[in-house]
Amino acid sequence: MAEKSSHFLECMFHPKSIAIVGASANDPESGWVGRLINFGYGDNGEIYPINPKADVIHGLKAYARVCDVPGPVEYVVFNIPARITPQVMADCVTKGVKFVHCFAAGFSETGVPEAKLLEQQMAEIARKGGIRILGPNCMGIYCPESGMTFNVDFPREKGRVAFVSQSGAESMRLVFLAQDVRVYFSKVISYGNAIDLDASDFLEYLADDEDTKIIACYIEGVHDGPRFVSAIKKCLEKKPVVVLKAGLTESGAGAAASHTASLAGSKAVWEAFFKQTGAIPCNTMDDVADTVQGLLRMKPPKGRRVAVVGRGGGIGVIAADICERAGLKVPAFARETREKLGSVIPEAGAGVRNPVETTLGMGGAADFYQRGLPIVDGDPETDVILVHMAIDVYGGHTPNLAQQTAEAAASLCTVAPSLKKPVAAALFTGGHPDTIMAVLAAREKLTKAGIPVYSGVESASRAINKVINYYEAVRNR
Amino acid sequence: MAEKSSHFLECMFHPKSIAIVGASANDPESGWVGRLINFGYGDNGEIYPINPKADVIHGLKAYARVCDVPGPVEYVVFNIPARITPQVMADCVTKGVKFVHCFAAGFSETGVPEAKLLEQQMAEIARKGGIRILGPNCMGIYCPESGMTFNVDFPREKGRVAFVSQSGAESMRLVFLAQDVRVYFSKVISYGNAIDLDASDFLEYLADDEDTKIIACYIEGVHDGPRFVSAIKKCLEKKPVVVLKAGLTESGAGAAASHTASLAGSKAVWEAFFKQTGAIPCNTMDDVADTVQGLLRMKPPKGRRVAVVGRGGGIGVIAADICERAGLKVPAFARETREKLGSVIPEAGAGVRNPVETTLGMGGAADFYQRGLPIVDGDPETDVILVHMAIDVYGGHTPNLAQQTAEAAASLCTVAPSLKKPVAAALFTGGHPDTIMAVLAAREKLTKAGIPVYSGVESASRAINKVINYYEAVRNR
Repeated sequence: MAEKSSHFLECMFHPKSIAIVGASANDPESGWVGRLINFGYGDNGEIYPINPKADVIHGLKAYARVCDVPGPVEYVVFNIPARITPQVMADCVTKGVKFVHCFAAGFSETGVPEAKLLEQQMAEIARKGGIRILGPNCMGIYCPESGMTFNVDFPREKGRVAFVSQSGAESMRLVFLAQDVRVYFSKVISYGNAIDLDASDFLEYLADDEDTKIIACYIEGVHDGPRFVSAIKKCLEKKPVVVLKAGLTESGAGAAASHTASLAGSKAVWEAFFKQTGAIPCNTMDDVADTVQGLLRMKPPKGRRVAVVGRGGGIGVIAADICERAGLKVPAFARETREKLGSVIPEAGAGVRNPVETTLGMGGAADFYQRGLPIVDGDPETDVILVHMAIDVYGGHTPNLAQQTAEAAASLCTVAPSLKKPVAAALFTGGHPDTIMAVLAAREKLTKAGIPVYSGVESASRAINKVINYYEAVRNR
Repeated sequence: MAEKSSHFLECMFHPKSIAIVGASANDPESGWVGRLINFGYGDNGEIYPINPKADVIHGLKAYARVCDVPGPVEYVVFNIPARITPQVMADCVTKGVKFVHCFAAGFSETGVPEAKLLEQQMAEIARKGGIRILGPNCMGIYCPESGMTFNVDFPREKGRVAFVSQSGAESMRLVFLAQDVRVYFSKVISYGNAIDLDASDFLEYLADDEDTKIIACYIEGVHDGPRFVSAIKKCLEKKPVVVLKAGLTESGAGAAASHTASLAGSKAVWEAFFKQTGAIPCNTMDDVADTVQGLLRMKPPKGRRVAVVGRGGGIGVIAADICERAGLKVPAFARETREKLGSVIPEAGAGVRNPVETTLGMGGAADFYQRGLPIVDGDPETDVILVHMAIDVYGGHTPNLAQQTAEAAASLCTVAPSLKKPVAAALFTGGHPDTIMAVLAAREKLTKAGIPVYSGVESASRAINKVINYYEAVRNR
């Protein structure tokens, strides 16, 4: 375990005790208390259910109020109606609480003046009492190391990616999307309306967090622009930062206002932000997951020239177009490379120029990876290898589809470590259940071997381009 | 059945007899003869295996040469090495064959001068002898009505989409992608190097083909540009035409040259082509399948203002951005609509502005479709309804996931027919097997009900925008 930071937020991710105000007595298993117990936080700290109408919740003594808890309380979850939050906050001040995570919604994001006032009251009480607020209108913290979570189905695996998200559902989406490709998190923070702690606070902490190697953000709006820019810059000195800035269009900005009461900011300002800082822009959560995977798993590419490897002439042409539209190049291999490939692929009609076609069927793919990829790796005209497996063209009807796909994936896994160039794989899923299951199994194998896996050439080339942009920016500093 | 055209190509899709030169005696089942028998062509016409070393193939008498066949032969498949194609073509002339499908590759696409010469010889013999050639280097014809196919796993269902494809694998990809969403074909033509019959021939035929309501094309290059433009225009007078023009980038053009020996043409020329004709441009085969589905299933939208319906505030903001980037708008609903929606969704934090959030969980979605969609349908500020089901955020862990998703889909199916606005659904698949299977089942239900289904907001908005562009162009004629 890396040495812990002395930053004030360190305690938010590793509190010694958590009280749940509004702990549910009726459904303790799926509530906050059950989640923390089942996820393992109970091994690291104390859990105090707060509910004036219950004695015991999930086997733990319940207290009527936060100030009734005998020991110290560092972190409190507000699972209560918005209107009673000011009085509970006052209780927390009395108790000397450090952090309040206000899960409750119904504040400024509603656009109702009374709700906004309530939010301001709560914030004022916290500020005077020295309490820092996470939220309101957010899911809070997921930290596998301390056992904190807002979703008991999240993976227990500790990873090296941190995610700072203004949206709760999007934080869930990314955790699960990432889990599917065996990417795990150090810390995830869903922070909602950000009436106190804002993205900048988390970023300043994560910049120095030794457990975090890559940072991803979902941002609707920030309260203090210059501070956000400086926090992002601080992070980027040490690690890549991927930012999905939502609400950059007129339509999106309107939606953001009613979601987290955010002022989305102008498109021009944010374009300047990305240019100035080197933060990596993404437009969808899939894009974030894809980019993070590339940053984690690809060796730094020397340039943006891609060798495209896979069966099918038409998909090769389409792939070349897609790559170039994404900002990459698919140049012809050197003559020597083409000659060598020609001896490996004697078949009429199969291309060796780049894209290069593996021989017929998935069996041909497995064989080509062994004999052809080292040749492609030695080509002086290309920097990155993109292997696509287009098993969807068989519509699920190939005999031994699963076995052949598994063998192709296994072959790629054995040869990839010996290649000097970074490698990425695009597995076309198609829509047939058998194809999908074969692809999921192959994805498991490839990601275990550290090869980034994408759902197609479009997503792969987009991610590869962003990885290259990042390293180019680092080199040009 | 619609009345058959008098166009000379009508016979190519409904020949009375087919001879297979190079019919395989060792593997008759998976070869051309087995395919035609198993797919049902034998019920409509005669099949003649041609193989000098076999007496019987797949229960059918084999002949040494095409001219040995006793009855007339209208259509011949060349499954033979490129070098012997001229002499077999001469045989076909003697026999009075109408069409030769040259499946064989190894011609001009190799870049080898001798191979190009061979291609020219074959073409010359055919031209003088009055035979029309399909190919070489292509898969040929799939026509469920006549029982012709190049893949025995293709669906038997007759549909209303025609696909003209220079690539064989891409024609397979589209047929299977379309099958996954219950979209079927009238005719698919994989035509490869196009040394004689070219896309323009097929398009001129399809323009008047009563069985075809929508035309899709995969084009790498065309030999006669003005004729192609005029053929596309003729089609567009009667039906939408979707075109994936591959090789529009420098990288793609190089790949196209070595795939089908095509001169890809300049980007500017093709941009002008799309502008001038109103053909609908697509960049990937998924994009083609998505657009075709929208054209088949969506009522003509009155405008480009989208109502976005689905759970999750963050995904709503992202969806609004995606829609606007795709060329659509997501304006706020009229005040009256918002008030009505507010009474249906009392939950704090759920948006009613547009995007509108269904209430919590998939059960909430099923309920909202019944009570909320009619309100959205009545809103005067929007023209299209995009429903997204973001079940991937649960990572496959929702209890009764499959059942709840099925109920939500069923609910949408019952309410959709009563809505005046066109509806499209985006089902986020995620990567968990349980979520994927739940989505596939929901997709089956929705597409059976005639609702177009997409894998996400990105693909949905892209397709919706293209459908709108098409109808706008029709209105502005």
